[in-house]
Amino acid sequence: MSETSSLPVAPIDGRTRVVVILAYPTHHVRTPTFFNARVAALGLNAVLVPWKVSPAQLPAALEGLRLVENLAGVIVTVPHKQQMAALCDGLEGIAAHLGVCNVARRTPDGRFIGRMYDGVGFVTGLRGQGIDPAGKRALLLGAGGAATAVAAALLDAGVRQLTIVNRTRDKADLLVAQLKAKRPDAAVGSAEGAAGQWDLIVNGTSLGLKPEDPLPLDPVLLDPSSLVAEVIMQPAETALLLAAKARGCRIHRGEHMVTAQIDLLVDYLLG
Amino acid sequence: MSETSSLPVAPIDGRTRVVVILAYPTHHVRTPTFFNARVAALGLNAVLVPWKVSPAQLPAALEGLRLVENLAGVIVTVPHKQQMAALCDGLEGIAAHLGVCNVARRTPDGRFIGRMYDGVGFVTGLRGQGIDPAGKRALLLGAGGAATAVAAALLDAGVRQLTIVNRTRDKADLLVAQLKAKRPDAAVGSAEGAAGQWDLIVNGTSLGLKPEDPLPLDPVLLDPSSLVAEVIMQPAETALLLAAKARGCRIHRGEHMVTAQIDLLVDYLLG
Repeated sequence: MSETSSLPVAPIDGRTRVVVILAYPTHHVRTPTFFNARVAALGLNAVLVPWKVSPAQLPAALEGLRLVENLAGVIVTVPHKQQMAALCDGLEGIAAHLGVCNVARRTPDGRFIGRMYDGVGFVTGLRGQGIDPAGKRALLLGAGGAATAVAAALLDAGVRQLTIVNRTRDKADLLVAQLKAKRPDAAVGSAEGAAGQWDLIVNGTSLGLKPEDPLPLDPVLLDPSSLVAEVIMQPAETALLLAAKARGCRIHRGEHMVTAQIDLLVDYLLG
Repeated sequence: MSETSSLPVAPIDGRTRVVVILAYPTHHVRTPTFFNARVAALGLNAVLVPWKVSPAQLPAALEGLRLVENLAGVIVTVPHKQQMAALCDGLEGIAAHLGVCNVARRTPDGRFIGRMYDGVGFVTGLRGQGIDPAGKRALLLGAGGAATAVAAALLDAGVRQLTIVNRTRDKADLLVAQLKAKRPDAAVGSAEGAAGQWDLIVNGTSLGLKPEDPLPLDPVLLDPSSLVAEVIMQPAETALLLAAKARGCRIHRGEHMVTAQIDLLVDYLLG
């Protein structure tokens, strides 16, 4: 158990508003710890609980959630961020542009309206650790749910160059095209491999969640001058972060992306 | 806020098993307070949250709950106890006999198996307050979800006579027939009104939940020698209990029915 496991949870009664976090699996999920502590600190009557639903069952499970009148909404994590965006009745902001969401509030008539805070959360988390992405050469691994939003937010934050590497190159190219549609002059492209000079390397894949996962890049490519960042929260230090430390790199844990967006999530769902 | 509102809730993380309490409305529900405190005391990783679903939406909402792999089960209260029994894939014990349930565990393949603990909870709660129903002349108001189970439990506990009064007499007669099917010699019958000599009067209707509700019986019928008991938990003292106190009767609050069955619910759902 980590030092955060004893953070408080507000009392639960018949007037409590519920939020569920959709994930599969759920054991790595740490958002409830931070979310519930913030809810308790604010004196709100609400609670976030894990909701383990497989991708195949997500549409039917969501139909059930539409009917729950005290459900404030859902938080969405691996592997549901893209499917959930497709299932939402409306998307706002960057979620609409990129087709991913990590939160959806439930309207009183049972519709879900999605937003995506992972990008702003990731960049806010970096800045909170004294790291400004502006002017940096950035490598992003992955082109899925969280990676998509991190890419957009890194461009917004003024990285000098953003290179996206994905197992399937086509998906990386598609993301580059999406990003350029909104920012025609953006210095963003895809690459076949991770070789290069990077100030900032971000793992935006889910590789590292499971002990048997391969590393998302070959650690011989890690230079001590690079900062290596994760979006994975559990384990707190993934195999990639451990390899990066061993190579002398500064590391940035995945939990910052979530803790930096807790206030946004609380405000959107319960405000 | 009552003195119980600050009881602890165990930390919630990605491995937490969830139980929902199906109710409509939910504001009167107090089971989460007691259930979560017991879970915390036992060191279990689980949480009970309110789930506000209308009777018309209950079947569809339940289809969604079948798909949630970390859902341990559901607790069921007004007005769902009879409909839920019909929706269960299996019923055990008195729930099967009477067609009512107040709890259903979810099997790993998404089936719901129901039980009914309100009767044993009510009688255990009485005994916990030093009241033995054996030999007593009992009047039961109502023939719905909780009342049905209370009736059976009072007969099991050896009341001398049980009289059931319900707004629609046919429903009371049907319950009497159900009870006699299992206990041909039971001293149980229905009556048109509440007049009579009663050692124990139990309100098993939901009248008293809402401030505008009429009393479930005319208070001029209350004799100071009668003990007047509730199954309603919120308000803690219903209009009936207040009227009974004013007439000099001993009263027995509805919360005892729930608190006396918490261990049974925890064991069935999480054991």
